[in-house]
Amino acid sequence: MAYLNENYLKLKAGYLFPEIARRVKAFTEANPEAAKRLIRCGIGDVTEALPDAARAAMHKAVDELGDRNSFRGYGPEQGYDFLRNAIADNDYKARGIHVDADEIFISDGSKCDTGNILDIFGSDNKIAITDPVYPVYVDTNVMAGNTGDADESGAYAGLHYLKCTPENGFVPEIPSEPVDLVYLCYPNNPTGATATRAQLEAWVQYARANGTIILYDAAYEAFIQDPEVPRSIFEIEGARDCAIEFRSFSKNGGFTGVRCAIVVIPKGLMGKKKDGTKLAIHPLWSRRHSTKFNGVSYIVQRGAEAIYSPEGKAQVTALIQHYMGNAKLLVEACTKAGLQVFGGVNAPYVWVGCPAGVTSWQMFDKMLNEANVVITPGSGFGSAGEGFFRISAFNSRANVEEVCRRIAIL
Amino acid sequence: MAYLNENYLKLKAGYLFPEIARRVKAFTEANPEAAKRLIRCGIGDVTEALPDAARAAMHKAVDELGDRNSFRGYGPEQGYDFLRNAIADNDYKARGIHVDADEIFISDGSKCDTGNILDIFGSDNKIAITDPVYPVYVDTNVMAGNTGDADESGAYAGLHYLKCTPENGFVPEIPSEPVDLVYLCYPNNPTGATATRAQLEAWVQYARANGTIILYDAAYEAFIQDPEVPRSIFEIEGARDCAIEFRSFSKNGGFTGVRCAIVVIPKGLMGKKKDGTKLAIHPLWSRRHSTKFNGVSYIVQRGAEAIYSPEGKAQVTALIQHYMGNAKLLVEACTKAGLQVFGGVNAPYVWVGCPAGVTSWQMFDKMLNEANVVITPGSGFGSAGEGFFRISAFNSRANVEEVCRRIAIL
Repeated sequence: MAYLNENYLKLKAGYLFPEIARRVKAFTEANPEAAKRLIRCGIGDVTEALPDAARAAMHKAVDELGDRNSFRGYGPEQGYDFLRNAIADNDYKARGIHVDADEIFISDGSKCDTGNILDIFGSDNKIAITDPVYPVYVDTNVMAGNTGDADESGAYAGLHYLKCTPENGFVPEIPSEPVDLVYLCYPNNPTGATATRAQLEAWVQYARANGTIILYDAAYEAFIQDPEVPRSIFEIEGARDCAIEFRSFSKNGGFTGVRCAIVVIPKGLMGKKKDGTKLAIHPLWSRRHSTKFNGVSYIVQRGAEAIYSPEGKAQVTALIQHYMGNAKLLVEACTKAGLQVFGGVNAPYVWVGCPAGVTSWQMFDKMLNEANVVITPGSGFGSAGEGFFRISAFNSRANVEEVCRRIAIL
Repeated sequence: MAYLNENYLKLKAGYLFPEIARRVKAFTEANPEAAKRLIRCGIGDVTEALPDAARAAMHKAVDELGDRNSFRGYGPEQGYDFLRNAIADNDYKARGIHVDADEIFISDGSKCDTGNILDIFGSDNKIAITDPVYPVYVDTNVMAGNTGDADESGAYAGLHYLKCTPENGFVPEIPSEPVDLVYLCYPNNPTGATATRAQLEAWVQYARANGTIILYDAAYEAFIQDPEVPRSIFEIEGARDCAIEFRSFSKNGGFTGVRCAIVVIPKGLMGKKKDGTKLAIHPLWSRRHSTKFNGVSYIVQRGAEAIYSPEGKAQVTALIQHYMGNAKLLVEACTKAGLQVFGGVNAPYVWVGCPAGVTSWQMFDKMLNEANVVITPGSGFGSAGEGFFRISAFNSRANVEEVCRRIAIL
C-alpha cells in the first residue's frame, strides 16, 4: 500500500480561513436573523468590481479564442512576453529598478508561488518566518517536511520564529545567527506594517553576509501611500544577490477570483549543492514551471496586462483609494473605541489590540455574536498574534461605516 | 547559503517539448523560406476555435465580475459546486459511474495535477510507469527525489518501467511484483492505444490485491469512438478502492490556453503511514488544495461548465469529429506509405514506426528538413519509444491533408 506524506499530519486544526468559515457557518445556522446583518471583514478578499480595462481586455481575449486564426493554445509556461514586459516596464523599470522581463514568472497566485517555491530548495535549510505570519509560509514548510511537530503554542520545531511586536514596529530584529531562507512580507499581512528603506537595507546586508535568501512577499505594495516606503525589495542595492520577490494582481486589480501573480528571480541569484557548489536558482524555477505548470490562462494574462494601460492604472488607483479610505475609517473608529491600533496607513489591514484579558478567538466570537462582524483572530497568524485581531479594509464604504458604528457601541 | 533541490540536476537535457521548440527555432532561422511551409504536428495542442458555449459563458462571467453585486473574489479552493456537480452528473452519473461531486477537485491543468499529486505521497514508494510515457510523470518523480540517476538509455534508477510495445498492444503486462503507485494513461499519450475493459479489470484486481494506487490519466477520454472501451477507470468494479483519475478540458473543450482540469479521489481511497496505519487520501489532497492553491479562475470554471450544456456538448462533439477525421487521414497516409501505424482510432495521436534503421530523432530531423513537418520523436517518451514517432491530429483539415501529401512523397 502506498506510503503517504505524514508531514501533513503535523498540520494543526486546519488552515485558518476554513476554520473561520466553519464558525461563521455555525453562527449563521444558529442565528438566521442576526446572520442577515453579518459583515465580513475577515479574509482579505476584494469586494469591488473588476477594473473596466481588465474586463475589456478579457472580452477581447475570449473572442480571439473564438476565431481559429487568432486562437491560442498552450502559451509559454513562464508567461506571455506581453505581460512579462508590461510588468518589467511598469513595476520595475519605471521606478528605476533593474528587473528583466525574463526574470518574471507569471503564475496563478501568490499562495501557490510561496508554497511551490520550496520545491526547488533542498532539505536542511534553516528557515525563518515572522510571528505573526501569513499561515501559508508555515504550513507549506510543514508539508514539505522542513519542520518537526508543533508545540502547544502552535510553533513548529525547526522553524526560526522572528517575533513582530508593537515594540519593533512589527519588523523583526536581524537574527543573531545565520538562516538560509527568510520570509518577509511588507506591507505586512496581517499587521499592516511596512518596512523602511533602512530596515530592508539591514536585511539585505545580513542576507548577503550570510548567504540568506529573502523570500519577499510584496503582494500589498500597491497600497503604499508614503513615497519613502520601498515597494520592492529590488529597490535595495544588493537585493538581486539575495532575494526572490512575490507579487500579485489579487489586491491591486481585484483578481482574487481571476487568478494571476508574479515571481521575480534575478538570474544571478545563487543557492548551493550539499558539496558547496554554487548553482543559479532561476533555471531551477524555470524548469519547475515547464514541468509542473502550463501557464496562466491567456484570457487572464490579457486582463493583467490591461492593468498597466493608462485606463487600467487610473482604475486601480481608484480601487486602492477606496480601500484605503475604508482603512482610514476603521483606524479612526478603533482608536476612538480606545483600542490599540496599528497598520491601515500603507496597507489594507488594520491590526488591533484586544481589550485587556480578551484572547484573539474570544474577540472573534464576541465580534461575531455581538457586532455580527467577521474579523480574523490574531492568534491564527501565530502565537505572537495572540491578543490582536485583524480587520480587513476590503469592503464597500457603507459596510465599513456600519462596522465603525458597531465598534463604537460594542 | 540555501541548499537547492539537487534532484533537479538528475533531469535529462530538458523537457521534450522545449527541446523540439529549440530544434524548430534553429531550422526556422536557418531556412526562412522553407519555414513558411512548416506544419506543426508535434505538441498535442488543439488548433480549432473555442466552443461558442464556453465563450458565451466566459463573457457572462467577465461581466458578472464587473458589477459589485455579482462580483466574486476567492472561490472554493476545490472548485465551485456548479462545475463539480456538472462533472459528476455528466461525466459520471449519466454513465452509471459512482463519483460524488465532492470527490472532484477542479484545477488549472492535468500537468500540474499529475505532478502535484506526488506531494501527498511519502518516500519509499515503488513507482511504476509505462515506457513510452508522458514525460511529466517521470520528471516530477525525479524532482521529488523518488528516483536515482538516469542511465545511458535515459531510464532512472528506482522507477519500474513497464514496456509498451506493438506485441502487447501498448498495454503493459501486470507486474510480477507489487508496486505502490502505477501511472496508466488511456487513451494513451503517446501511442494512441486504448485499454480494454478486461485489461483494466486485471489492473484493478492487481491493484486491490497489492494495495497499489493507479494514477489513471483519462485526459483523452473524449476521443474514444468505440462504446466498448472504458472512458473512466471508475467504470471498473473495485476501482474506487485503488484509483485516482485525472481529466482535462484541454483536449475536449480546446482549453489548452484557457486551463482547467479535474482530479477525482474517491473518499474511501486509502494509503498508509510508515507504521502501517491506514489513512484516507482525499483529506490530504483537499488540504493541499486549500493551502497551496486558490482555485481556478471563476471565468474559466464558468467556461468549463458550459461544455456540459446541450450546445456545449454538440460543439465538443463536432471538435472531436474534426480531430478524429484528421487522425483517420493520417493513419491512411502513413499506412499507404508502408509505415507501421498504431493509434489514431480512439485517440488523437498516430504512433508510427520509423523506417528500418532510422532513429526517432533522425526521423524528427528528416520530417523537419525534408517534409517541413514537426512530429514528436518516440524516444522522447522513453527508450521503448525509440524507432517510433508521434503525429498529432490536432490541426486544420487543410494542414493534415497537406501533411498526408508530403508523407506520400517522402
